[in-house]
Amino acid sequence: MTTTWLDIDTSINERGLMGILEFPIVPFEVKRLFWLSQVPAGELRGEHAHRSCEQFIILLTGSVHCRIELRDGQVIEGDMSPGNAFHLQTFSWLVLSQFSKDSTVLVLANELYDETEYIRSYDEFKSR
Amino acid sequence: MTTTWLDIDTSINERGLMGILEFPIVPFEVKRLFWLSQVPAGELRGEHAHRSCEQFIILLTGSVHCRIELRDGQVIEGDMSPGNAFHLQTFSWLVLSQFSKDSTVLVLANELYDETEYIRSYDEFKSR
Repeated sequence: MTTTWLDIDTSINERGLMGILEFPIVPFEVKRLFWLSQVPAGELRGEHAHRSCEQFIILLTGSVHCRIELRDGQVIEGDMSPGNAFHLQTFSWLVLSQFSKDSTVLVLANELYDETEYIRSYDEFKSR
Repeated sequence: MTTTWLDIDTSINERGLMGILEFPIVPFEVKRLFWLSQVPAGELRGEHAHRSCEQFIILLTGSVHCRIELRDGQVIEGDMSPGNAFHLQTFSWLVLSQFSKDSTVLVLANELYDETEYIRSYDEFKSR
């Protein structure tokens, strides 16, 4: 399946880069956000799915490789650039890799943190 | 006046930096977000106030110098580190400067963009 990132408006000029997202595009009310930076090359992040939490993931800076395995087995995979974003639905196995040194990933979530809604075993994910 | 940043939880280990913010700390529903990166050293950003828009500003990466002049003339000023954040209320004149090469600033706002609610003249700001 081809990559289907959303593209957030970004503009770059001699004063720097600005990306802007207005909220009809995020399909839920944000209850939590987190960000990743300074992830070493070679490190994988994600490697889990969520039972109930939806996320909206935006690459703010740098580059990262993203692989999403959907509940029905379809795979969405590609290299993200600043402003690329996607809505990660429940029961989707996400792996982020190939973090560039300057990459910053922002994640918006529709729920507060709850460890019990994480699926951290790939075998459990596949058996559903 | 001393600097009164909020500190967002951040943790850094061999897998990188993660910052996490749960939403009771943001005092409004987010309608818009934007981010700044790749701002050249020597550039100033902000240099305006808002009539109605409130913002929650978080430094995600790098460092930046922040100066906020409140409506009553008080000044809050300091160097921000990753995870430092503040609630920028209306009628506050904000200037960000001394952007490090790797700085990323995230701004959450309670309104969609509306140019008419910006105060872009410092004289107008001071005359209120």
